[in-house]
Amino acid sequence: MVIGAPQPVRVGVLGAGNVGKALVALLLEDADAIASRCGVRLEVAGVAVAEPSRPRPRIPAELVTGDAKGLVTDPSVDVVVELIGGIEPARGLLEAAIAAGKPVVTANKELLAEHGAALAESASAAGVDLFYEAAVAGAIPIIRPLRESLAGEEIQRVMGIVNGTTNFILTTMSEHGSSYTQALAEAQRLGLAERDPTADVDGHDAAAKAAILASLAFRCEIVVSDVEREGISSVDPVDVDFAGRLGYVVKLLAVAERIGERTEEVPEVSVRVHPAMLPRNHPLAAVRGAFNAVFVEGEASGELMLYGRGAGGMPTASAVLGDLIDAARHLRGGFSSTSSPRPRARIHPADDLRSAWYLNIDVADRPGVLASVASVFGENAVSIRSMEQVGMGAEARLIFVTHVARQGDLTKTLDGLRGLEVVDHVGGVLRILGDEQDEEPGS
Amino acid sequence: MVIGAPQPVRVGVLGAGNVGKALVALLLEDADAIASRCGVRLEVAGVAVAEPSRPRPRIPAELVTGDAKGLVTDPSVDVVVELIGGIEPARGLLEAAIAAGKPVVTANKELLAEHGAALAESASAAGVDLFYEAAVAGAIPIIRPLRESLAGEEIQRVMGIVNGTTNFILTTMSEHGSSYTQALAEAQRLGLAERDPTADVDGHDAAAKAAILASLAFRCEIVVSDVEREGISSVDPVDVDFAGRLGYVVKLLAVAERIGERTEEVPEVSVRVHPAMLPRNHPLAAVRGAFNAVFVEGEASGELMLYGRGAGGMPTASAVLGDLIDAARHLRGGFSSTSSPRPRARIHPADDLRSAWYLNIDVADRPGVLASVASVFGENAVSIRSMEQVGMGAEARLIFVTHVARQGDLTKTLDGLRGLEVVDHVGGVLRILGDEQDEEPGS
Repeated sequence: MVIGAPQPVRVGVLGAGNVGKALVALLLEDADAIASRCGVRLEVAGVAVAEPSRPRPRIPAELVTGDAKGLVTDPSVDVVVELIGGIEPARGLLEAAIAAGKPVVTANKELLAEHGAALAESASAAGVDLFYEAAVAGAIPIIRPLRESLAGEEIQRVMGIVNGTTNFILTTMSEHGSSYTQALAEAQRLGLAERDPTADVDGHDAAAKAAILASLAFRCEIVVSDVEREGISSVDPVDVDFAGRLGYVVKLLAVAERIGERTEEVPEVSVRVHPAMLPRNHPLAAVRGAFNAVFVEGEASGELMLYGRGAGGMPTASAVLGDLIDAARHLRGGFSSTSSPRPRARIHPADDLRSAWYLNIDVADRPGVLASVASVFGENAVSIRSMEQVGMGAEARLIFVTHVARQGDLTKTLDGLRGLEVVDHVGGVLRILGDEQDEEPGS
Repeated sequence: MVIGAPQPVRVGVLGAGNVGKALVALLLEDADAIASRCGVRLEVAGVAVAEPSRPRPRIPAELVTGDAKGLVTDPSVDVVVELIGGIEPARGLLEAAIAAGKPVVTANKELLAEHGAALAESASAAGVDLFYEAAVAGAIPIIRPLRESLAGEEIQRVMGIVNGTTNFILTTMSEHGSSYTQALAEAQRLGLAERDPTADVDGHDAAAKAAILASLAFRCEIVVSDVEREGISSVDPVDVDFAGRLGYVVKLLAVAERIGERTEEVPEVSVRVHPAMLPRNHPLAAVRGAFNAVFVEGEASGELMLYGRGAGGMPTASAVLGDLIDAARHLRGGFSSTSSPRPRARIHPADDLRSAWYLNIDVADRPGVLASVASVFGENAVSIRSMEQVGMGAEARLIFVTHVARQGDLTKTLDGLRGLEVVDHVGGVLRILGDEQDEEPGS
C-alpha cells in the first residue's frame, strides 16, 4: 500500500441529523489528517436525506440526494454509513448495501436490538464488515473491546449506565435534592431530555443497548423484548437521600449477567434495566451527569470499566469514524497496525508546561511575612488562587493553590522562597490537574 | 472458514513467569470454549524457558523447551508470544519470529518503550501483526482502542494511573493516614510491591508505559528517555491530608499531551510521570488501590476513561489471549465480526434473580409493629441486614436493607407488607448491586 497516494474510499452517508452532520464535517475537514494518520483517504460520495431541498449550511449541495437506494447501490460507493435510526428504511438499505458487497457502519440501536443477528448473518455470508461502535454508549469504545480484546474472555456480568438523560436526572436529584419532576425539567431546559422523555425515562433506550451488549458479551441472540425493563419516573427524592445517608447512589443500570455453569454451550442469562443503588466507592457511582460507563466482569480479566460521553453529535460521529477507518483499512488490505514509519516526536520543554500548583510552606509567624512571601510569587508571574494559614506556635504553615502558571516560573518562585530568611521550609509542591476552572490549552 | 473443524493455530510461548503460566493454563483448559466462541483453535506448540529442568506442575513436561530460538523458527509454529520481559533475548527472538513471517504478541513494556518503532517497522515490512495490549495497564483494553477505535481522533491528552503499586501506596496514605514508609511496607506485605521497589516508586515502570501510550496517541516515536520522571517517595502524608481537605486526591500520573497547533504534521508533545492532585470528582480520583485507568481527551470523542486491573497473571494473560485470537483470526482469514450463527439465548426467570434490597416503609408508630413487619420478611425467607427507624408523629418510617434474596421472595414480602393493617405505605424499593459483602454467584 502506497501511503503517499492512497486510493480514496468513497463513503455513502444515510441521514443528516446531529450525528450525520458531525460526521460529514469531520470527513470533509479532516480528510488530509485522516489520510496521513491512518493510511486511508475517506471521501464523501453522497449524503441521502428525506428532504433534499432543505438548506444545510455545513453540507455542500452537490453531495445531498433524496435517493438513498441509489446511493447505496452506486458502484462508486465503497462503504455505507447508516445514521437514519429506526427499523425501516434503515434495515432495507443496510441489507441492500451488504447484498452489493459493501461493508456497513451503523449507529442504530433500535435496529440492532431487534434484527442484529440477521444483519450479522447477512454480513458474514457476504464477507463484509458490519460495525456499530456508536450504537451503544456513543464515543466509548465498548463494542470493539467486547468483540476483539475480550474475545477469549468468559464474561460474567456487564453493568452499564448507558442513558445520559436518566443519569443526569438521578445525579441532579442526588446532588441538589431536586424532585424527579424538577430534575427532568432541568434536563429538558438543557436539551438533555426530549419534550416527550418516555424513551429515556422509561428505559426503552437503555433496554435496546442492554440487548446489544448482552448479545456480544454472551455471544447469543438477545432482542429488546428479552429485556426486563423498569424506568426512573417513580424514583423518590426521599430514597435518593436515604441512599446517600447509607453510603449509596441511585443509578439506572442496564445489567446483563450469566446465570449458572459456564460449561453450558448456550448460557442462561438475565438482561434487565432498572434503577439500583450502588456503593459510593463503586466505579460506576462516580459516573455523573450525562456521562455513560460500562462495567464488565470477566473471569480472567477481572473488573473493567469503560467511561465517556454516551451521546452528542461529535462524540457519536467520532465512534462512527473509527469504524469507517477500520472498514476502509480492510477494504484496502492494510494491516490494523500502523504501516507508515513513525517520525521522531518533538518534545515540549518542561519549563513551558503550564498547570496550577499546590505549595506547602513553613514560615516564621510574624507581621509582614505573608507580604514578602507573596511578592516572590508576583515577581515570578505566578498568581495565587487561594491561601490558608495554619498556626504552629512560633511558626506558621501556609498552604497555597496557584492559578495556572509556567513550570519554569514556578521553579523560580521556589528558588526565591527558599532564599527568604523568613521561610523555614518549602514542603510539598504538587501539580493540580483536571480541575475545570484551570483548563486552558496546553495546561 | 469451516467453524466446526478449524485448522489449529499453533502458539509458541516464550517465558513461563506469572503471565506465561496463566496464559498456558487458559490455552490448555479453554481450548474448546475459545474454538467455539471465536472460530479459531489455539494449540500450545511449546513453552521456552531458561531452566527447562525445573518442575512446573501446571505445564505438561513435553511442551517445555530450553531452545527458544528453535521454537521461534519451528515451521509448525504459527504465532509467537513473548513474555520474557527486558530487552535481550526478547528483542532478538521477536525479530527472528517476524523475519520468519510470524505474527507476534508481546507484553514487554521495556522493549516497546525502547525499540517499539523498529519492531513495528519490521512487522509492517514482513506483513505480520505486532500486538501488545498487555504491555500497558494489564487487562484494560487501551492499545486496541487507541489504535483502532480512536484512529480518526485528534487526541489532546492522555492521563493514566498505570502503576498499581504506587496507586495502592497513595490510596493507603490517603485513606488510612499512613506514612509513605508504612504504606510501602503494607504493599510489600501484600505482594503488591517488590522488595526493591525502585522500578515502581521512582516511576520507571510508569515512564515506559507513558512512552508507549504517547507513541500511539500521537503516532510518533517516543522512547522512555523522552519521558520526564518524578516518583512518589517524597510524597508527604501531610500533603495528602491537605489535598483531601482541599477536595483533591494525590495520584501518580503518566501524562502525554499535545502542545501547540494540531495543524503541525509532527506534533509537539510533553510526556511525563509525576505525582499530582486531582479534584475528588475527577473520574481518575475514584481509581483506588492497585487498579489502573487511562483517561483520554479527544477533540471529537470528548473525555474517555478505561479502567481495570493493571497487573496480575490472569488479567495480563487475558489481554494476551485477546491479541492472540485477533492474530489467529487474521492468519485464518476470518473476519473480526463473529462469523458463526448465533443461537437464541435462554433467558433467566426474573423471580430467581438474587440481590440485596433497600425498602422504605411507613407504619403506624405503636408497640408490636416492628415484630409483625419483621415476621413478613421471615415468612418469605428474606433476611434483614439492617433497619433504621425515623419518627414522624403518629407514624414511623422504617428503612430496611436486606441480605441477598430471591426477587420472587421479595415480591411476596412486598405483597405481605401491603396486606398488613399497620403498614400505611410501601415507598421506595431498590436493588443494591456491586456491594462486595453481598456478592455471590448470580447475584
